[in-house]
Amino acid sequence: MRNWPLSKVYQLLEPGPVVLLTTSRKGRANVMTMSWHMMVDFEPPLIACIVSDRDHSFVALRATKECVIAIPAVQLAEKVVAIGNCSGRDVDKFSVFHLTPKKAEHVASPLVAECFANVECRVVDTRLVNRYGLFVLEGVKAWIDPEQENPKTIHHQGFGKFAVDGELIELTSKMP
Amino acid sequence: MRNWPLSKVYQLLEPGPVVLLTTSRKGRANVMTMSWHMMVDFEPPLIACIVSDRDHSFVALRATKECVIAIPAVQLAEKVVAIGNCSGRDVDKFSVFHLTPKKAEHVASPLVAECFANVECRVVDTRLVNRYGLFVLEGVKAWIDPEQENPKTIHHQGFGKFAVDGELIELTSKMP
Repeated sequence: MRNWPLSKVYQLLEPGPVVLLTTSRKGRANVMTMSWHMMVDFEPPLIACIVSDRDHSFVALRATKECVIAIPAVQLAEKVVAIGNCSGRDVDKFSVFHLTPKKAEHVASPLVAECFANVECRVVDTRLVNRYGLFVLEGVKAWIDPEQENPKTIHHQGFGKFAVDGELIELTSKMP
Repeated sequence: MRNWPLSKVYQLLEPGPVVLLTTSRKGRANVMTMSWHMMVDFEPPLIACIVSDRDHSFVALRATKECVIAIPAVQLAEKVVAIGNCSGRDVDKFSVFHLTPKKAEHVASPLVAECFANVECRVVDTRLVNRYGLFVLEGVKAWIDPEQENPKTIHHQGFGKFAVDGELIELTSKMP
């Protein structure tokens, strides 16, 4: 994995891919599937996401204030759904799903080696956590796997139906 | 346009499509392009989005606490980018881009007739507006255009590059 500039994290997350979120607490790593996230600011990259208090990851995220957002390509789609279908309360998901945890640089939460991008994050705002489970994160380090060329992400349309990235189009935009 | 159930609004927005956001203030309608939004809760549908205080729509959204999120299919991609390239400060975008405003049921902001889905929204939480321009909206009515079958949405990857929805895959998910 190699560095990805923090100023370009939005290019990874803005298109709305299904992602994985890893946490680690008391030596136990966990991973959940997440579609409810958005960019909040470019630089430093701020990201909002919803982690419900019904998710096992909630306690670890709130307590440690650290996580990794890992972005899977379509090849991992079956695992991504299976990860979403069970809880870290019951199983060690890294082990069950043969995911390779990799040491992050700034946070205790692991990177996911099989994902084409990983963003190490710290929680920077918890004002909307009690009401909505809405965390504001700051990306502090981003990684990309140069071996995975032109990764296609998946976009959840409900109940296990996903749109895979198709044609790429380019239009003249003044916007980043 | 016909009703779309509020309990299924997440199926429209969760996949991360580029959307339009309309507002209306003092009899003037405006529309902006937006990629930074996410679902917050299912029912009632809560949606978070970022509207920066540099966006002309910011003042109208904050003052009226109403908007419409309109979802364009790929056929509108050029207009969507052009809408993002200019400001309602300078032009009447509905007129310049030949968009058809349609009266909404619960809000003064117009629906966009050319979009395959429209969600009427009210602002329900402004605690993160000053810091991040983060508005929490509640969807109060949703519409779908039954004439537009299998609409393909677009997902922004930065600087006018978009992934168009491609293949649809289906996996067994316990999650809505």
